[in-house]
Amino acid sequence: MGRGDVDPEEVVRLEGDRVVLLDQRRLPDEVVELVCRSAGEVAEAIRALAIRGAPAIGVAAAMGYALAALRGDDLDEAAATLLASRPTAVNLAWALGEMRAAGSDPDRLVERARGLHADEVARCVAMSDHAVPLFRPGGARVLTHCNTGALATAGHGSALGAVKAAFARGLVERVWVDETRPLLQGSRLTAWELERAGVPFAVVVDGAAGSLMARGEVSHVVVGADRIAANGDVANKIGTYGLAVLAAHHRIPFVVVAPTSTIDLAIVTGAEIPLERRPAAEVTARFRAENPAFDVTPAALVTAIVTEAGAHLAPYAETLPR
Amino acid sequence: MGRGDVDPEEVVRLEGDRVVLLDQRRLPDEVVELVCRSAGEVAEAIRALAIRGAPAIGVAAAMGYALAALRGDDLDEAAATLLASRPTAVNLAWALGEMRAAGSDPDRLVERARGLHADEVARCVAMSDHAVPLFRPGGARVLTHCNTGALATAGHGSALGAVKAAFARGLVERVWVDETRPLLQGSRLTAWELERAGVPFAVVVDGAAGSLMARGEVSHVVVGADRIAANGDVANKIGTYGLAVLAAHHRIPFVVVAPTSTIDLAIVTGAEIPLERRPAAEVTARFRAENPAFDVTPAALVTAIVTEAGAHLAPYAETLPR
Repeated sequence: MGRGDVDPEEVVRLEGDRVVLLDQRRLPDEVVELVCRSAGEVAEAIRALAIRGAPAIGVAAAMGYALAALRGDDLDEAAATLLASRPTAVNLAWALGEMRAAGSDPDRLVERARGLHADEVARCVAMSDHAVPLFRPGGARVLTHCNTGALATAGHGSALGAVKAAFARGLVERVWVDETRPLLQGSRLTAWELERAGVPFAVVVDGAAGSLMARGEVSHVVVGADRIAANGDVANKIGTYGLAVLAAHHRIPFVVVAPTSTIDLAIVTGAEIPLERRPAAEVTARFRAENPAFDVTPAALVTAIVTEAGAHLAPYAETLPR
Repeated sequence: MGRGDVDPEEVVRLEGDRVVLLDQRRLPDEVVELVCRSAGEVAEAIRALAIRGAPAIGVAAAMGYALAALRGDDLDEAAATLLASRPTAVNLAWALGEMRAAGSDPDRLVERARGLHADEVARCVAMSDHAVPLFRPGGARVLTHCNTGALATAGHGSALGAVKAAFARGLVERVWVDETRPLLQGSRLTAWELERAGVPFAVVVDGAAGSLMARGEVSHVVVGADRIAANGDVANKIGTYGLAVLAAHHRIPFVVVAPTSTIDLAIVTGAEIPLERRPAAEVTARFRAENPAFDVTPAALVTAIVTEAGAHLAPYAETLPR
């Protein structure tokens, strides 16, 4: 495992009759690959969060579908199993729809899955290009939540990709990494990526964001999205909504960076987005807990939504469909 | 260890030439007592968070000072050691001031320390009496942060004491317990106390508060305070300020329950309150982290400050000194 930015092939790849992915549950302590030999094993890897992040899940599911074709498994069943692995990410349904449209020839499906992977990375690079102008010279102090880097998108990254690109152009002084309870994607994955990329950062507990903003220590909040409604409401990792309210209170730009595959024009507002609830034991093994994995940030709190097509501003109901 | 509310003597007591305290670091998995035989050992217990919560720290420090007198140790040195154990809690300085004013006779100092303990519990009961009218009939859904129960005040509790008292009068339907990273005082201590007291609750990650409020699941936010400035600015556990901004955004009452010993009229605004920074390793052992232990909530975001003297409303600069 090298230094520098994380390669797309490190995150997930289709290798012969196997899907090989970096087991994100073991990071940062161990860099271990997980080998999946069927669509069911890929679905289980997604369900168990060995790979997570909406675009990375889509790529892994596409590769799992291709694997089913290579093995001669039932493709309808493979698609249903993969689709059921996580409820919130729209990319999963989108990627599987692309695969189903590509027919049933195994070689064609392998090629299509790899094409989707390459497209995802290219989209991230385009998102970065559109997001970088939102950082003005002077040393941004960016607060980010969860992991939206190469690990989340199977290469480069969405929100974190944009932050790394802005850093490379001298526009970012430091990054505040929300640890992101309960699964600590920030202190485990984002911190690991930023360390590899040489970006100065400090991890903070999620509750510290408000006082950092009050002290003038945050110039931008930059996050990803799991699903975006047609009106610009953004479903993302639990805690995102609170950051958006805090950013608005402190007049700090709140920027969402996510691929167009995350936008679900069939969903009018965030109220219609199904939000995954995860096991209470992720929060505490001893007491009753509620563990909503996502929340919805109303469009009114979002300064800009950056996709590979450009930086969209409000009114999102008009600007997103373009 | 019984069921029901936690007894003051369970939290901390002076027993012969020893201060015996419930080691809060081991809860909820183990109920273990820690025995301190000198002021230095009490200071170390405070520093290491075996006992925490501003009023409980004050009581423990007073007992540590009495212990120094019983042993014939230098009282100035004992006071200095105890005072240096935690920087934010004003009760520590206040309790030591009371002890120094009581002279140097060991028996007198033991009696004074026990008197301070009894006073602290009586103050909590009075705070509860003043806070209960803030809960109207109809089943409050209270969100609380950190631990402000019997464990924090050496009996009964401040904010959590008020919540338990309101529950006992049928005014509280359930409690949302912020887990309170990094040290998890909510999911370890508050949950343990609420389970013992039979109050329905669920633990949530700190980032979930915003979406709970957006869904109408929170009717009151009730927290304690480590120090309150003359203008009503409140220093409390990191994350409190963010909750106050979220509560204001959702027009939810934000109530602070804390003894008058927490009010420091010598401090004009929150900007003057020294805020403890704790070791980064409490957040992550692997990466650079910043770990501010407290934040300051401006008085403008506080609906009421309840002390043993009554429920104070804004303008606090006028109502607090009374």
